[in-house]
Amino acid sequence: MILADALRRLRALSQPCLFLLATCCAGAQSGQLQFANLGQCKLESGLTIQDCRVGYRTFGKLNAAGDNAVLMPTWLYGTSADLVSLFGDGSSPQHLVDTSRFFGIAIDAFGNGISSSPSNSPRQHATDFPSLTPQDSVRAQYRVLTEVLHVQHLRAVVGLSMGGEQTFVWSVLYPKFFDLAVPILGTPRLTSYDLHVKQIQVETITTDPEYAQGHYATEPALKLANLVGTLVVTSPEFRNRATPRDKFTDFIAQAEAPQSIDANDRLWQLRAIMHQDVVGNRTIAEAARATAAHFLVIVSAEDHLVNPQPALDWAAALGAPTYISHGDCAHLIMSCDAAAVSSRVRAFLIAGQ
Amino acid sequence: MILADALRRLRALSQPCLFLLATCCAGAQSGQLQFANLGQCKLESGLTIQDCRVGYRTFGKLNAAGDNAVLMPTWLYGTSADLVSLFGDGSSPQHLVDTSRFFGIAIDAFGNGISSSPSNSPRQHATDFPSLTPQDSVRAQYRVLTEVLHVQHLRAVVGLSMGGEQTFVWSVLYPKFFDLAVPILGTPRLTSYDLHVKQIQVETITTDPEYAQGHYATEPALKLANLVGTLVVTSPEFRNRATPRDKFTDFIAQAEAPQSIDANDRLWQLRAIMHQDVVGNRTIAEAARATAAHFLVIVSAEDHLVNPQPALDWAAALGAPTYISHGDCAHLIMSCDAAAVSSRVRAFLIAGQ
Repeated sequence: MILADALRRLRALSQPCLFLLATCCAGAQSGQLQFANLGQCKLESGLTIQDCRVGYRTFGKLNAAGDNAVLMPTWLYGTSADLVSLFGDGSSPQHLVDTSRFFGIAIDAFGNGISSSPSNSPRQHATDFPSLTPQDSVRAQYRVLTEVLHVQHLRAVVGLSMGGEQTFVWSVLYPKFFDLAVPILGTPRLTSYDLHVKQIQVETITTDPEYAQGHYATEPALKLANLVGTLVVTSPEFRNRATPRDKFTDFIAQAEAPQSIDANDRLWQLRAIMHQDVVGNRTIAEAARATAAHFLVIVSAEDHLVNPQPALDWAAALGAPTYISHGDCAHLIMSCDAAAVSSRVRAFLIAGQ
Repeated sequence: MILADALRRLRALSQPCLFLLATCCAGAQSGQLQFANLGQCKLESGLTIQDCRVGYRTFGKLNAAGDNAVLMPTWLYGTSADLVSLFGDGSSPQHLVDTSRFFGIAIDAFGNGISSSPSNSPRQHATDFPSLTPQDSVRAQYRVLTEVLHVQHLRAVVGLSMGGEQTFVWSVLYPKFFDLAVPILGTPRLTSYDLHVKQIQVETITTDPEYAQGHYATEPALKLANLVGTLVVTSPEFRNRATPRDKFTDFIAQAEAPQSIDANDRLWQLRAIMHQDVVGNRTIAEAARATAAHFLVIVSAEDHLVNPQPALDWAAALGAPTYISHGDCAHLIMSCDAAAVSSRVRAFLIAGQ
């Protein structure tokens, strides 16, 4: 985690250079960060993101028929850099998308510090940034695909956690634009339990002594927010296996260590997720049946960050295949059950109807 | 919860009167709060509680042989008033101890605002109060039994949650003083996961904006502390069943509502629990085999506040009977699985060897 943070800081420092590269030069290298500058992005709230930009990375090649693109949106606090290891030739159990066959697109959600966010907006900085919903990110992603990458159809949308939430949104907003939907640890609508966790995550930031005093620029340490975030992503069994009692102090220091993501970016993303609801006044079954994509739903039985039941109900309504992981790393499914997940996803992307 | 708080406040107001009653008059009524004034209580740390007092309530009668007393220590933040409903004639599934047969003693742990605590100590007030361990409460309880109530032997110690922790401590400190031990949702030693939860609970208090400024007297609201406390006592399934999404705002308001227990009292109790370890350098099996009481171990499979594994390991080492609840209210076992628990406890108190 410390190494990942160091890499993330390095990446943040190098962003201006990459931005210049992306805007000035054609033919970006595989996996390189690029930006789509969309001008204004209209939001569900009626407000607008000015200087709207969306980060993305591509892997492999769009085929002549233009039908092999697979989109992967980011998870909470995650960036497209965090998704790089999920694209590859299938030689690693981390590879969800076989880039020898598919044109992979990792795309940054609003508020993640790469795409337009409170931390990087020149004219709507920090708390002046408009509030977000998952729909807002998905609509902007659609514009990137159609206006910038000239992709008119996707083979699939694959997303983990908040990326899974965006996958459900994709299936409702653009039902004909893609064939296959693979939400992994995502939910069509947060349950009361999920909202409870998110409310706690929000309050660990808003009540942080430094944040509450408006010290955004100096990066509040947000120790408690980080400590809570670490609790709900795994299971008690995982924690007890991974952390011997005599290493508890070291563990706490690591769990509380500063993360590179800005405090307002976190808040804007958390509050966006709390709006996740593609069901509305319908039942989950009715909402599911109004979509067109074929689903593979993957959840973790012990997930205490995103309750798996709504996604399972969605799959049941469609008769869609599911995979329920029983790994004790729970929401960190790619840490302990990657091979089972990736083998199913790779097969589904090829054979899924 | 709001009603319980109102009752607790009323009780707090009436404490001085009850104290006078208890100290001036013989023959307290069944279930009435009484106080044992122990003068000085020496602590494990080498420090001393001055003006040391321990609250307790008795139910039923000590028999002529003096062998029918059952002690029940309090849970975290709980008082002996909260235990009253667990004593009775067996007509309610809440009745763990049949008071037509047993002499029940509910006893207040240090730091709970009834027994000596940061909030009520006249000479060691607030942060001047010495830090505590579960051993400290158990040693004082032993003095109440032997010096005040003149009980020379207990039939059993029965405790829930932190009361279960004290039950394990009793079995190690005074192995011959009682026949039967019934820890319910307790642990002989906190796991890393348990410590992680407790560390979060501590920090939700210490980083509270009002608490951090030393506003103890005005009772910090501790909204976040209460919100976190509500998360880990049940399961996602329970929350989703009990709280429809459209009642989420009401739920948060209720979950964040002020509790009557003082902020420092909470902290002192939390930090005491973090010291819970009757195992030391031995294995759990070795520690268990060094005790003499017969155990009935009751845990909840979905417990995300106190990990059940160490208690189960303890029982396995002794070949002791166990009951593993699978109710979705998890740590709130007496809310959804009371009959299964109380029937087993009542039978064990009678027949246990």
